[in-house]
Amino acid sequence: MKKVLLIGAGKSSGYLIDYLLQHAVAEQYELTVADLSAEAALIKTKGLPNSRAIALDINNQKQSIQQIEAADIVISMLPASMHFPVAKACVELGKHMITASYVSPEIAGLHEEALKRDVLLLNEIGLDPGIDHMSAMKIIHEIKAKGGTVTSFKSFCGGLVAPESNNNPWGYKFSWNPRNVILAGQSTAKFLLNGSYQYLPYHRLFASSEVINIEGYGKFDAYANRDSLGYRKLYGIENIETMLRGTLRQHHFCEAWQVFVLLGLTDDSISVELEEHCTYGKFVSSFLPGIGSNLLQRLCAFTGRESEDSVIKMIEWTGILSDEPIGLQQATPARVLQQLLEKKWLLEPHDKDMVVMQHMFNYRSASGSQHRITSTLVVTGEDSIKTAMAKTVGLPLAMAVRRLINGSIHLRGVQIPVMPDLYLPILEELAGYGIVFEETEN
Amino acid sequence: MKKVLLIGAGKSSGYLIDYLLQHAVAEQYELTVADLSAEAALIKTKGLPNSRAIALDINNQKQSIQQIEAADIVISMLPASMHFPVAKACVELGKHMITASYVSPEIAGLHEEALKRDVLLLNEIGLDPGIDHMSAMKIIHEIKAKGGTVTSFKSFCGGLVAPESNNNPWGYKFSWNPRNVILAGQSTAKFLLNGSYQYLPYHRLFASSEVINIEGYGKFDAYANRDSLGYRKLYGIENIETMLRGTLRQHHFCEAWQVFVLLGLTDDSISVELEEHCTYGKFVSSFLPGIGSNLLQRLCAFTGRESEDSVIKMIEWTGILSDEPIGLQQATPARVLQQLLEKKWLLEPHDKDMVVMQHMFNYRSASGSQHRITSTLVVTGEDSIKTAMAKTVGLPLAMAVRRLINGSIHLRGVQIPVMPDLYLPILEELAGYGIVFEETEN
Repeated sequence: MKKVLLIGAGKSSGYLIDYLLQHAVAEQYELTVADLSAEAALIKTKGLPNSRAIALDINNQKQSIQQIEAADIVISMLPASMHFPVAKACVELGKHMITASYVSPEIAGLHEEALKRDVLLLNEIGLDPGIDHMSAMKIIHEIKAKGGTVTSFKSFCGGLVAPESNNNPWGYKFSWNPRNVILAGQSTAKFLLNGSYQYLPYHRLFASSEVINIEGYGKFDAYANRDSLGYRKLYGIENIETMLRGTLRQHHFCEAWQVFVLLGLTDDSISVELEEHCTYGKFVSSFLPGIGSNLLQRLCAFTGRESEDSVIKMIEWTGILSDEPIGLQQATPARVLQQLLEKKWLLEPHDKDMVVMQHMFNYRSASGSQHRITSTLVVTGEDSIKTAMAKTVGLPLAMAVRRLINGSIHLRGVQIPVMPDLYLPILEELAGYGIVFEETEN
Repeated sequence: MKKVLLIGAGKSSGYLIDYLLQHAVAEQYELTVADLSAEAALIKTKGLPNSRAIALDINNQKQSIQQIEAADIVISMLPASMHFPVAKACVELGKHMITASYVSPEIAGLHEEALKRDVLLLNEIGLDPGIDHMSAMKIIHEIKAKGGTVTSFKSFCGGLVAPESNNNPWGYKFSWNPRNVILAGQSTAKFLLNGSYQYLPYHRLFASSEVINIEGYGKFDAYANRDSLGYRKLYGIENIETMLRGTLRQHHFCEAWQVFVLLGLTDDSISVELEEHCTYGKFVSSFLPGIGSNLLQRLCAFTGRESEDSVIKMIEWTGILSDEPIGLQQATPARVLQQLLEKKWLLEPHDKDMVVMQHMFNYRSASGSQHRITSTLVVTGEDSIKTAMAKTVGLPLAMAVRRLINGSIHLRGVQIPVMPDLYLPILEELAGYGIVFEETEN
């Protein structure tokens, strides 16, 4: 019996585990779910046949190696920074590994060794990155097959709250790792516009968002996401003129978030002194120019806005100007902000989240005519557990694992899902779960 | 015979080596100068008695250990990030080590082990940090001895160009490591103003400089330097209300440097694509909002300034908008900017540099009266080799080494020069070299 080891039973693992256990008996594999707490793992496996729930501290090297050694395929749902030691062990022990995270330079460095050991390290096979690559590649390959040339590719994705569950001025609730939301965008974004390289540093990123209109859902802010340039080669569109991957937020979110960035409240590199009973207001006061206890007035002066301005209202709504005690002793500004927003942006049990993705392609056909394809995916969650995020991150990952078990994936080395053999059957299967793009061409 | 090993014979090592060799024969010690190139080391030792010049690649662990093992005292003039392995080896081999750099958290972590091995790791004994600590501590200890209480301490220091050698609109030339100048200020500054913690993120640092007037030398810009808060404890002034350490530049420098910061040109975390023959102008175009080949116009729009504005003139003067080819293939923006400025801000052979330091103390006397002490140091260099920077960094370090050799320093563990036993004789000896503070009190 093949053995699958899943490390990390966090927010996004529900659909992944359910899917894998649904097929485990018939297809004769066993799934071990390993988490810091065995209870958390057991809640997810529900003790279903062919499942095991175990406690595993990934920092306990001996135990980790033991578990990896006993598996055929390892799924890492750990935070991105923790994948590398697992990947290294997998290569050394000859085990396949799958993650939904970006390929880090360290992981990329394992390619040759993985090939030698006949191992697949498949990454970026969640939602974004993941479904974005697969759905974009399908269209790019179709355009190429007809002799066309892609001249522009813009792609946006956001994990948001569904309109019916939105009851705050930011139009945002956490449907995945809050820390990633707080720290998003902290390295200079790189993209290509009309043949010109564009570099956008963090302190200007949220001030440079563009407005995207998605039919039936209204306006969204889109800000550039990391390094879009590297995907030109991976997508096989080296000569493209415009290439931009971006992140979606509710319209006006970026304008208000920029205030946090400019204040320095998203900084994760320094530790600030929080005296006993230090309040959020006192904390913010250390970042606001000027003096005096009227924080609202100082915030208005800092931003050049009136106190009735909607951005000021959004900031005030978070409670960051309030007299509420923080209750931490030493923390980075980002950690203080995260703690506050985790309370305010909590996805309540019956709240529905929403995943929105849109690709926009311009291409020149073989005959020279100009075309535009817009491809849009919207998935709405059921509740705070069965989220659209967990579904769209977990299912592609799970489907890849299952295909790897039954021997239909022959890829080896460090890979992302850009080959038709890999993405076509998965996109087809995802459609059965309501994960379908709507495509328009003109 | 005692043996001193100096690793790194760079810009700031001339006075240090001259001083140590001047006393070497009489005081019976030997100085080995180790540099990547033995020739560079020999130029500095001039083959003087009791000197050796050797080639040493610090990445060659075996050779480094061998050299450290053969020494009694090790001086590291390496870049700050490279001290730690040397410090670790010194502690393990029971050798004292001296540097002019800030104590990093890793070095601080060696304190207990160093005590156990009877080893001194003396850091921050150059100019800034170094002379600033020693001269400030002297005044603080004098105030305390009279029963006074220091309520405010502001201290500024800059390595600048002397007025007679200034022929550029920035009033700046490189008298020390250019890379450190380009990257200066990149972590959020921390200080204390009237009892309130202040945190200033990098993107606002140079826009928040204050103007300092130094009698006889005119106006300077001062921006907050790193973490001033930690020195409250080290200086024994835990209850002070204002505590700010800052860096000086010629007046108006900060305003113009802020444009580079906002553009993203000081970013050292990303690599940018530089096509063949890529010019500085094209490079900047990727960071400027808007499109079109009129970079000056786009820069004016970005900064909200007229083309005749002095800040725009300063930017233009650097050549960053020019058609000159960069000649690098892949580099960080900071590296591109550094390469350009190294040409423009070169200290020519007969140029004189200038070091300016000023402390401002407010204190309350035992009787309750308020006082203010201003203490100012200005040192002018002789030429581009015998710089004020090399002199003020090298001499305190050299004097500490000599005192360590002759057994008059009994300190052990990780230390900075804040004890009278250490700083008083060194300040006195520095005065003999013209390194004297002028003090006024009112």
